[in-house]
Amino acid sequence: MTELEKIGKEAKSASRILAIAGTDSKNRALLKIAEEIDKRRKEWLSANEEDLKAAKENGMRESLVDRLTLTDARIDGIIKGIREIVALPDPIGSADKTDRRPNGLILQKRRVPLGVIAIIYEARPNVTVDAAALTLKTGNAVILRGGKEAINSNKAVVAIMRSALLEAGLPEAGISLVTDTSRESATELMHLTDYVDVLIPRGGRGLIRSVTKEASVPVIRTGEGVCHVYVKKDGDLDMGAKILFNAKCQRPSVCNAAECLLVDEEICEAFLKKAVPLLFEKNTKLRCDEKSFAVMEKLLKSGEIKGLSAESFDPATDEDWDTEYGDYILAVKTVKSFEEAVDFINDHGTGHSEAVITENYTYAQRFLNEVDAAAVYVNASTRFTDGGEFGLGAEIGISTQKLHARGPMGLMELTSCKYAVYGNGQIRE
Amino acid sequence: MTELEKIGKEAKSASRILAIAGTDSKNRALLKIAEEIDKRRKEWLSANEEDLKAAKENGMRESLVDRLTLTDARIDGIIKGIREIVALPDPIGSADKTDRRPNGLILQKRRVPLGVIAIIYEARPNVTVDAAALTLKTGNAVILRGGKEAINSNKAVVAIMRSALLEAGLPEAGISLVTDTSRESATELMHLTDYVDVLIPRGGRGLIRSVTKEASVPVIRTGEGVCHVYVKKDGDLDMGAKILFNAKCQRPSVCNAAECLLVDEEICEAFLKKAVPLLFEKNTKLRCDEKSFAVMEKLLKSGEIKGLSAESFDPATDEDWDTEYGDYILAVKTVKSFEEAVDFINDHGTGHSEAVITENYTYAQRFLNEVDAAAVYVNASTRFTDGGEFGLGAEIGISTQKLHARGPMGLMELTSCKYAVYGNGQIRE
Repeated sequence: MTELEKIGKEAKSASRILAIAGTDSKNRALLKIAEEIDKRRKEWLSANEEDLKAAKENGMRESLVDRLTLTDARIDGIIKGIREIVALPDPIGSADKTDRRPNGLILQKRRVPLGVIAIIYEARPNVTVDAAALTLKTGNAVILRGGKEAINSNKAVVAIMRSALLEAGLPEAGISLVTDTSRESATELMHLTDYVDVLIPRGGRGLIRSVTKEASVPVIRTGEGVCHVYVKKDGDLDMGAKILFNAKCQRPSVCNAAECLLVDEEICEAFLKKAVPLLFEKNTKLRCDEKSFAVMEKLLKSGEIKGLSAESFDPATDEDWDTEYGDYILAVKTVKSFEEAVDFINDHGTGHSEAVITENYTYAQRFLNEVDAAAVYVNASTRFTDGGEFGLGAEIGISTQKLHARGPMGLMELTSCKYAVYGNGQIRE
Repeated sequence: MTELEKIGKEAKSASRILAIAGTDSKNRALLKIAEEIDKRRKEWLSANEEDLKAAKENGMRESLVDRLTLTDARIDGIIKGIREIVALPDPIGSADKTDRRPNGLILQKRRVPLGVIAIIYEARPNVTVDAAALTLKTGNAVILRGGKEAINSNKAVVAIMRSALLEAGLPEAGISLVTDTSRESATELMHLTDYVDVLIPRGGRGLIRSVTKEASVPVIRTGEGVCHVYVKKDGDLDMGAKILFNAKCQRPSVCNAAECLLVDEEICEAFLKKAVPLLFEKNTKLRCDEKSFAVMEKLLKSGEIKGLSAESFDPATDEDWDTEYGDYILAVKTVKSFEEAVDFINDHGTGHSEAVITENYTYAQRFLNEVDAAAVYVNASTRFTDGGEFGLGAEIGISTQKLHARGPMGLMELTSCKYAVYGNGQIRE
């Protein structure tokens, strides 16, 4: 038995105990985790310093170093997050429905945990605690396999959480860390079908695609976001410009940020005149199709947009239509019709979040119906696709697949169901 | 582009049209399919005769020939099945919930189709029509890949169904058949990630395991059933014997039939005295653990069970505990405690259907809570795990996994959700 099989087997045993643990017991454990992280934060911070030192020596990018970094304030935020999860209702044990069948069988469709949830993610120590708290609240065991850059931080906080579980009378194997951060350990985890009920990859497109392709355990694909804002000619262009600016620039690194503007060609110039000055507040670069490029050249020549230079926009290549920039870059494409826009979104989108700006009732409804994505918006920013904004409380990720869960995954999405059937001697005729 | 990619691409396009087709339109197409199958049944029957001729030449087992065989009566049953699906409520388009968020966004969680559903199955022509009807009703496109032994029957009925779709004004690519029945075509289908939203294998354990292991498209595992009946010492033994007999013998070839009796050792003899005479009505063979084997030997010697012979029971091997016999064979294992029984079921069961016979309130509840299966029963036969018996109408299979669907999969389980968000200019702060 390999090290990982041992972890899997222990997690599976722990999951059976967690599955029948009461809400009070799970909440006590969560509060204990919050308390212990608070008390032992120095341990966690000093382990994090080791990781940061190594990261800087290895020349890690500044934005990644930032994600890896723990501070007292961030730890306070993480602890607050745990307490919020304590306050959420526990879905486990409630029945979706209870029927009495004609033969007298009482059929109860109950919410139960999924079992063992594995999570493969990159170097963000906050994910370690978030994921453990959400899975514990829903009576699942979790196997965490974080990035090697955060290994010391993860070891420290998982040790803290496991001792809190024990103190709360729950099995410590409810929260496990894979300390072997080799590619081989990730691959083995993807094939641990005897023990893993679902695997959730969290991170960049490369990680998610390779896990989806490789894994034989069930996978939930999350967080790949090539999102569009489509401005129709009958839309309110001022509103559209504000929504586009928000969708692109409010936080460009996240998956629900927009990557591509689609605009009816008749209003391309009128709309860009309104949108470009906003986008340039954040020095956003445009990647334009032929027609929008021509419009931008015209605007450049006319000098009517302050600060616009030839460096601000480039011709788009085919690759741009499928790129999640995660940065202040926006692809721009003109379309001849509503149908072209919908087809383009369905072909190039990742099924995450899509918005239309229109005042036309019929096209608004058609967009909601015909665009195939987890969240479709009329006259609002794509940035709202989020567990908190959707009222689910916390979230473990945003599913871009259709099986099991779609959109922000809250506690309910970490459950399965079971039919409990009460009989008094029924046999099938 | 391969033949299968072409099928996938066309199915995906068709799925977008079917997704927004109204219930009336889908029902008209279903009725048209029923009508055309009725009218053109001679075509279907004569294609089936070709398949039967080949099957007999190739020495196909009698029970498989029976599954492959179409008759007028069976076609009548299939047509009746379509009409029943027409009568079921259409889940598509209804909203699970609608919320107004504090910022005024109206958030509607709608039921939508999964998209393109692929089904790999064995040589049962009725599955071809059942699966097509269920997926059409839920606005999905289907790619059918049936066994090579039924290829002529399948070609004939898919041609009939496609022409009915066209006549009803829906795209014929909503129902597609993979006519290449090589292993390679099945493998390619398992990796058609650009077009297939979910793959459902239907058939024997070998097929299901290999698809689950191999596929990179999302899979729903169905129909593997190593089910147990556990008779506790405080149970009503007469009721238990009747339930066991029903669970094992009413239709042993199906997945919700019992394969293994667990019995508290104190009552092993008393229970077998009641159960064995019933099981022997069907000439059921027992595969016994050491203690139950000794009990059977004692019963043999005593001569108190008529017709009992040394051929009626054999010692079990380890393999027996994990075997889905699908036949009049029952494994028998004594247990020392409730906990041993639950652990045994959780270790050897396939998560399908599990029953306990007990009059003890606390153990009944514990069994329902602690046994990890799609359906758990107190004092009733495992044979009830079925879409019809559970009141779902038709079913496309019985899921033994926890992701997306668990237990009998009706129309609702062929859907996903989508958030439709109505805004009036909201941006995220």
